Amino acid sequence: MSEAAKTLEGWYCLHDFRAMNWEKWKYLSTEDRQSITNELLGLLEKWEVTEAMKVGSHALYSIVGQKADLSFMLLRPTMEELNEIENAFNKTRFAEYTIPTYSYVSVVELSNYLPPSVDPNKDPEIQARLKPILPKAKHICFYPMNKKREGNDNWYMLSMDERKDMMRSHGMIGRGYAGKVKQIITGSVGFDDWEWGVTLFSDDVLQFKKLVYEMRFDEVSARFGEFGSFFVGNLLLKDTLPKYLHV
Amino acid sequence: MSEAAKTLEGWYCLHDFRAMNWEKWKYLSTEDRQSITNELLGLLEKWEVTEAMKVGSHALYSIVGQKADLSFMLLRPTMEELNEIENAFNKTRFAEYTIPTYSYVSVVELSNYLPPSVDPNKDPEIQARLKPILPKAKHICFYPMNKKREGNDNWYMLSMDERKDMMRSHGMIGRGYAGKVKQIITGSVGFDDWEWGVTLFSDDVLQFKKLVYEMRFDEVSARFGEFGSFFVGNLLLKDTLPKYLHV
Amino acid sequence: MSEAAKTLEGWYCLHDFRAMNWEKWKYLSTEDRQSITNELLGLLEKWEVTEAMKVGSHALYSIVGQKADLSFMLLRPTMEELNEIENAFNKTRFAEYTIPTYSYVSVVELSNYLPPSVDPNKDPEIQARLKPILPKAKHICFYPMNKKREGNDNWYMLSMDERKDMMRSHGMIGRGYAGKVKQIITGSVGFDDWEWGVTLFSDDVLQFKKLVYEMRFDEVSARFGEFGSFFVGNLLLKDTLPKYLHV
Amino acid sequence: MSEAAKTLEGWYCLHDFRAMNWEKWKYLSTEDRQSITNELLGLLEKWEVTEAMKVGSHALYSIVGQKADLSFMLLRPTMEELNEIENAFNKTRFAEYTIPTYSYVSVVELSNYLPPSVDPNKDPEIQARLKPILPKAKHICFYPMNKKREGNDNWYMLSMDERKDMMRSHGMIGRGYAGKVKQIITGSVGFDDWEWGVTLFSDDVLQFKKLVYEMRFDEVSARFGEFGSFFVGNLLLKDTLPKYLHV
Amino acid sequence: MSEAAKTLEGWYCLHDFRAMNWEKWKYLSTEDRQSITNELLGLLEKWEVTEAMKVGSHALYSIVGQKADLSFMLLRPTMEELNEIENAFNKTRFAEYTIPTYSYVSVVELSNYLPPSVDPNKDPEIQARLKPILPKAKHICFYPMNKKREGNDNWYMLSMDERKDMMRSHGMIGRGYAGKVKQIITGSVGFDDWEWGVTLFSDDVLQFKKLVYEMRFDEVSARFGEFGSFFVGNLLLKDTLPKYLHV
Repeated sequence: MSEAAKTLEGWYCLHDFRAMNWEKWKYLSTEDRQSITNELLGLLEKWEVTEAMKVGSHALYSIVGQKADLSFMLLRPTMEELNEIENAFNKTRFAEYTIPTYSYVSVVELSNYLPPSVDPNKDPEIQARLKPILPKAKHICFYPMNKKREGNDNWYMLSMDERKDMMRSHGMIGRGYAGKVKQIITGSVGFDDWEWGVTLFSDDVLQFKKLVYEMRFDEVSARFGEFGSFFVGNLLLKDTLPKYLHV
Repeated sequence: MSEAAKTLEGWYCLHDFRAMNWEKWKYLSTEDRQSITNELLGLLEKWEVTEAMKVGSHALYSIVGQKADLSFMLLRPTMEELNEIENAFNKTRFAEYTIPTYSYVSVVELSNYLPPSVDPNKDPEIQARLKPILPKAKHICFYPMNKKREGNDNWYMLSMDERKDMMRSHGMIGRGYAGKVKQIITGSVGFDDWEWGVTLFSDDVLQFKKLVYEMRFDEVSARFGEFGSFFVGNLLLKDTLPKYLHV
Repeated sequence: MSEAAKTLEGWYCLHDFRAMNWEKWKYLSTEDRQSITNELLGLLEKWEVTEAMKVGSHALYSIVGQKADLSFMLLRPTMEELNEIENAFNKTRFAEYTIPTYSYVSVVELSNYLPPSVDPNKDPEIQARLKPILPKAKHICFYPMNKKREGNDNWYMLSMDERKDMMRSHGMIGRGYAGKVKQIITGSVGFDDWEWGVTLFSDDVLQFKKLVYEMRFDEVSARFGEFGSFFVGNLLLKDTLPKYLHV
Repeated sequence: MSEAAKTLEGWYCLHDFRAMNWEKWKYLSTEDRQSITNELLGLLEKWEVTEAMKVGSHALYSIVGQKADLSFMLLRPTMEELNEIENAFNKTRFAEYTIPTYSYVSVVELSNYLPPSVDPNKDPEIQARLKPILPKAKHICFYPMNKKREGNDNWYMLSMDERKDMMRSHGMIGRGYAGKVKQIITGSVGFDDWEWGVTLFSDDVLQFKKLVYEMRFDEVSARFGEFGSFFVGNLLLKDTLPKYLHV
Repeated sequence: MSEAAKTLEGWYCLHDFRAMNWEKWKYLSTEDRQSITNELLGLLEKWEVTEAMKVGSHALYSIVGQKADLSFMLLRPTMEELNEIENAFNKTRFAEYTIPTYSYVSVVELSNYLPPSVDPNKDPEIQARLKPILPKAKHICFYPMNKKREGNDNWYMLSMDERKDMMRSHGMIGRGYAGKVKQIITGSVGFDDWEWGVTLFSDDVLQFKKLVYEMRFDEVSARFGEFGSFFVGNLLLKDTLPKYLHV
């Protein structure tokens, strides 16, 4: 048996993708739409308080294409809190005008393929990465992925050293995008259908394509990467949301 | 032909996953919601009597993410009883507010890859494992799986000794989680679309990820494991259910 | 080109799986439900006449899990009669309370991998197997399957002798379940999406698991078997159907 | 690069599969059903005029099993005409009682794996095969297919000679069914999700199974055939359609 | 690690496929249909202004078969504008009569497998290809694709020289169709589920089949091409749209 990578885990994470039922939304009275929009803004304000207290974070994006219209990304210290937020959202009036299209359950993860820290629980940088406040970047990109286990391309049958070497080279590419793309890796083994979720943030949407494409030529992706659906979107803020919802 | 593993079977098992139709639920009057909640609580009480009599067991969890809202896990001595419970549930008023999203039919299984018992029918420990009372753990994890049959990675073409060796090493990892994770294996060959269902229980949801990830580096998973959808959830009890359903 | 197996065909076969729309069913008046139940019982009686005349057979089972609630298995001498029954059922009032979930079109098949008969058209045993009256066994198991054609595991590139040897050993396992499990093989090449349908009948539902699992270690399944969805169910008779439908 | 096969193309082809919404159909008044049936018969008559003028052909079949109830196969000289017929059908009142379940867009194709003709544009036999009047056979079988491109089983990496040899042997099997099965090959590269559609016509439905099964042992199918869904059905004519639609 | 191809990117691209809800559309009054058609024509006129200003382009086609009825292809300088158009369309009254069936998010791409330009930002030909005004060709063909990463057929493990050689030979086939087929490649790594979208335009729909089929024998497609769904359609213009929508 190969030695398993050691991982550190932080906040639990829910990506919740929703399509808008625009027709139903349009047939509301202006007053009802206003009141429901306010309800949603209230929810966002509540989440902002959580974020200000550094006991969670969130992001709201408008997704391009038919896979979804809205994407909520939510981070909380426990799986119970994540589930409570999800259920609270489902009970809002706004939720009646949305259709669930995809979701992903995971937990922020750092792995020991990265250089070790003396005591991760006391290292503020590590702690900040495990409990990240999501950036208000203009664009988001999300996709789930696996490491392949097919014939000779079986990641989990490689030795720790082989995996470490490949992850190091992989990390080098990522470093080339420092300042342009922020990446958050969440682990989902045992929680959802793929092994990891990758969430990228950038003010330049083209950098997502550049980064993911360049990485695809790296052996760790070329031979071992399996990818699920890709979602790309544009930032929605409390003050742009009313325009987004205006009909 | 390779020698088939010998298996022992216990109670039959139904995993029944449901999404809530929250909108429909909300448009009920408070009285109707109360009365329907009571109907569901009544069903749970009936199942508790069965459990107290040790002729079955059950668990109810709130699932995180869009795959489901509720998960019912039901154990009964016969396939007929399982079907009766399923049909009885489908005829409740509560069922009208749920949408079936996934189910799994299987039977509690022990295999002879494990150390043999003198007479399994008389061994109280074996009997308790075949007819388990489900723990009231804070979290559940469920996933179905196969042993792969692809090219050189064909589990069913290995000799009994090769399989036994790998299962033993696999079991060692499991043992490292003793006291942290309780695992129930149910066999579903001939009953459902995968060969086994794996149900894990823990008070620490992170242990699911640690256990499944560590096992993935073990040859039996790395080369031979094929996995279906993963469901993760939080315990719902009779006294927390009304709050869960409150809108 | 490898020599193709010779096959004998008998009655045409439709497996028709339906979910109940229980909510719609419940909102009928008791009188309407009674009258629609009688309509269905009338259909079953008509099919029983056909069966008594030995020009067809049928079986009705309650399926466990969400894949379906009811399974109708129908055998008739021609594809036209099968289609007529299907359409007649679809035009009943009862059909309005069901949702089609899966179906399978095939024909009862015997192959020359089995020992040859002098003249199959005059051999009463062969004829009885080609035009089988379905047993009223307590349980049913149905699954469709293919023989694999992947790289070195390509059934259709093997010689007739290699295939015959493997099928003989496969048949030996089946024989070990004589008296416990009755198996009906229907061929569906050119009729439906898999190459065969396998329908098993038994009074002991556990025998399905034992048989299918033991066979999986046999080379013909281990290397060459590809399996679709598995459906398992409990017998419904004219006198238990009203209870099943009672709400 | 291997030499590409040369192909000849004829009429464009749409296979349009529909399920009946029997419940909605039943709740029409007898007069409405009559009038809508007449509308559909009128459409068929119009298509018959086209067929009589030899500028197109069509076939209507009742499909067995849940994949569809009706199958319309339409041939026309241009893609525009095909689209117009499709849209015209979608605008009929009858279409409101059908649910689209599958469709296939292709063009009648002959390939140079077959013996060459002097000038195909002047060869009346070739022209008749490229612009075929569909037979009124009792049964239809349709399935889409690809030639595989997997590892060593890559059709498109074979030399023209290797492909020609295999196609010749394949054609020999087909010739054994002359007079029993009529086959129309339509090409769909660039038009739909598979590379070809195969439509078989026969008065003996069992010949579909015999032909497709025998061909599966031929190297071209065994190693290189990839198959989509199979649809099988019974002929519907103008004078049997009213009975089919009668409720 | 293999050297990644360098790419140039131009306008962002949304392919938006919609089925018509013809029944709902028919039950509108003639006046409402007229007014909604005018709303859609107004949108097209607005897009034409954008196109005339060379800050975007669009195309509208009627798709053949059940995959969609309409296809909107939209090009804009930013992902935000693309999303705004999509949302604006979703808020129209016309959108209420359509059902989303597929969409694709990408960006116009040129790669350095092609001969290099001195300074692509100043090369007017390159700029015109990166910001293309879509031709009003009679037919469209769209399909997404990947380069395979399976065992020995792993595009991303090849050297830059090997890839360049194969792409050059691939480009030669394309050149054979110059004047007959116009091809626009859009990259979607990081944006959608496949790596590229291919959109072909031609006045002769048969050229799509000829081109794609001929390319399939080229090693780059034969060994490395993975293809998604194919959509084929006929041009819709402002003056033919009212007839298309007339019921």
